[in-house]
Amino acid sequence: MFDENGEKYLDCINNVAHVGHCHPHVTKAATKQMELLNTNSRFLHDNLVQYAQRLTATLPEKLSVCYFVNSGSEANDLALRLARQYRGHQDVITLDHAYHGHVTSLIDISPYKFNQLEKDSKKEFVHVAPSPDIYRGKYREDHPDPASAYAEEVKKIIEQAQKNGRKIAAFIAESMQSCGGQVIPPVGYFQKVAQYVHAAGGVFITDEVQVGFGRVGKHFWAFQLQGEDFVPDIVTMGKPIGNGHPMSCVVTTKEIAEAFGASGLEYFNTFGGNPVSCAIGLAVLEIIEKEDLQGNATRVGNYLLELLTEQKQKHPLVGDIRGVGLFVGVDLVKDRQKRTPATAEALHLIYKLIFNCADGPHRNVLKFKPPMCFTMEDAKHVVDKIDVLLTGIYVNEGNSQMQSVNESIGHINGAACRQENGFYSDKHSVPSKRIQT
Amino acid sequence: MFDENGEKYLDCINNVAHVGHCHPHVTKAATKQMELLNTNSRFLHDNLVQYAQRLTATLPEKLSVCYFVNSGSEANDLALRLARQYRGHQDVITLDHAYHGHVTSLIDISPYKFNQLEKDSKKEFVHVAPSPDIYRGKYREDHPDPASAYAEEVKKIIEQAQKNGRKIAAFIAESMQSCGGQVIPPVGYFQKVAQYVHAAGGVFITDEVQVGFGRVGKHFWAFQLQGEDFVPDIVTMGKPIGNGHPMSCVVTTKEIAEAFGASGLEYFNTFGGNPVSCAIGLAVLEIIEKEDLQGNATRVGNYLLELLTEQKQKHPLVGDIRGVGLFVGVDLVKDRQKRTPATAEALHLIYKLIFNCADGPHRNVLKFKPPMCFTMEDAKHVVDKIDVLLTGIYVNEGNSQMQSVNESIGHINGAACRQENGFYSDKHSVPSKRIQT
Repeated sequence: MFDENGEKYLDCINNVAHVGHCHPHVTKAATKQMELLNTNSRFLHDNLVQYAQRLTATLPEKLSVCYFVNSGSEANDLALRLARQYRGHQDVITLDHAYHGHVTSLIDISPYKFNQLEKDSKKEFVHVAPSPDIYRGKYREDHPDPASAYAEEVKKIIEQAQKNGRKIAAFIAESMQSCGGQVIPPVGYFQKVAQYVHAAGGVFITDEVQVGFGRVGKHFWAFQLQGEDFVPDIVTMGKPIGNGHPMSCVVTTKEIAEAFGASGLEYFNTFGGNPVSCAIGLAVLEIIEKEDLQGNATRVGNYLLELLTEQKQKHPLVGDIRGVGLFVGVDLVKDRQKRTPATAEALHLIYKLIFNCADGPHRNVLKFKPPMCFTMEDAKHVVDKIDVLLTGIYVNEGNSQMQSVNESIGHINGAACRQENGFYSDKHSVPSKRIQT
Repeated sequence: MFDENGEKYLDCINNVAHVGHCHPHVTKAATKQMELLNTNSRFLHDNLVQYAQRLTATLPEKLSVCYFVNSGSEANDLALRLARQYRGHQDVITLDHAYHGHVTSLIDISPYKFNQLEKDSKKEFVHVAPSPDIYRGKYREDHPDPASAYAEEVKKIIEQAQKNGRKIAAFIAESMQSCGGQVIPPVGYFQKVAQYVHAAGGVFITDEVQVGFGRVGKHFWAFQLQGEDFVPDIVTMGKPIGNGHPMSCVVTTKEIAEAFGASGLEYFNTFGGNPVSCAIGLAVLEIIEKEDLQGNATRVGNYLLELLTEQKQKHPLVGDIRGVGLFVGVDLVKDRQKRTPATAEALHLIYKLIFNCADGPHRNVLKFKPPMCFTMEDAKHVVDKIDVLLTGIYVNEGNSQMQSVNESIGHINGAACRQENGFYSDKHSVPSKRIQT
């Protein structure tokens, strides 16, 4: 990417520009359809059918009914409506630190958001399960079976809720937690949770808004990392689906869709599934396949993990490297034993790298989720820059103001970076426009 | 419009294709920006600022802060969040038959939707005021002051709610009710309601999703029909804003926006306000101005009303003609005195016209809300067809099956029409894909 002054930027976090910024095939598909017909989705159009067929072909067979909507938030809200209609239950189990969207119903189930509000902002129909984080969570990598242990926590929540006369409509989780700090659930966790949730009459919703569409490389969907024996009841999709075009989708089973239809309440979405959105969606799927972006995600992702692991050996600040494909987190710590989050240092790095991103409950995890055309050279380039920055931090260890690092940073920095010389402390808020996605 | 067999259609209801289907200026603006940059809205872009400036210039001065989102539903949900955060109140007053969107929080405040569910589906924080319909409502055109009378109903609701210890966050209404049956509130109603709602610590939200962007002709926004002394606290926009592109907007005052920001909860919307959406929004505003579509709406709208009034003189089935600009309703009745809704006849007409639309609580109101480039000839053409159909109904009066009308319908009918010869009774459900928007 280039700014108005011709300054170059390497995009390491934009999971929206999935197949690459301004991909000509996407632009062409959009233009062609805009010239022919765009209308609201009261009217059937071949693109809608073709896209639904193409999209469901990437999913296990029972996930066969698509609802096209306009954003990840609309998708997750609809997923809740589907779940609640299915058996008439209301309660939702969500993971700690989860973020599922900005509309009222999703703020309610997003601890990442509602925990920022006043005390007691958790609604009584919401139950928060621990994040299955084996680096910082309750059960760690040294636990013999963290998947079962974390699933057992969900079981306990269900039992407690039922004791209080409450009924579980759904368990919802990102297939890998993104805002929660790039957390990859241990294999087997989803299967066990699904078993408990189904027994309680609820459904399992996987939120693939940030992590879907081949990002993990060897699979098209991140929930498939759990194994073939796991199939969610509802999958929600978003960000990368249209390479920046506002669109999203909910896919579910025939059974759940029929229960929703049986309510008598017609579902209508003005823009959802319009001919232009579907043409764009189709183009994105074609590019992922044609350019072997899943293969690229595996190759470049593995190389990136390798490079970062070298950094871990070199810099004590790097506590954990975790990731699959082009979804990678670097957990920075002040102390490897205690795993004390190095929040200030992470903020310093992301400010210097401007296009990187720190997240997780302690805002100490550098996030990588670049466009899927990210190259080996790009990976090398950004890790080299991180190396320089980390080295700079040790040189200046103990100083609250670091003056020396700035001049050593080249290519990735934009003008905004060079204007600032300070080491950003925890209290210094970095402009939010730059640090998240 | 043309279908795949070259059959011509005249679009009388598509308020999404506002400046005309496939307008080249919109397509060009979209393509140009897609080729240059599209990214999520974490990053500032000139288009965002320019569009916000251009859009707020159409509004009263105090409406100066824009939130760009992706759909009318996202806009109305955010409007509720803004209203609730402002004073910490929760309750919402909505109009009977209102529809404000498909997400959970909006089904709750849409009697058009929740009345279709089981009994007692109205939440306790929702209060339903009578629709200010002077043709079918409680206070009619013969009432000396229907505006005050309907506003008084809202006042009573507020008083009752307060007695029950409840606090009003907002009154929400479309500036003209669309799904509610093309209802135009009497002038002065909004001013009085606003006075009562403000006194209760609530805000006034006007939903312009279906009716905004110059459709009423002499004003850019339908709420302006109430007079210059009325300014809402929050305005929501949608459908026509991007001529089919998924985008929408909430505009509010600095005071309300600051209260929302003070919650500490950052509002983030991935696609909202992206450079492509803003380029498209700008193009739509330019076309409305350059092609004098407001002038056209006034001229053609007046002519359409004139032609329909002639139909009223000719056909007893036509009970009421109401409208402003290119937002027109034809209320069909079996009996002019009793105003008995002629639902079956309305369905027959809309099925024959396929691109027309029946709505209102009795589904007996033909709706006109065509693209703003609708011409005098288009108006004449569709009214001529309606004349033929209405004449056919009288010829066949008393028959439940009408065979004769079909052959007389030419140009507007598509293949789907000619396959069907039946008179559609009330119980016959017309495929929903065809009749609403």
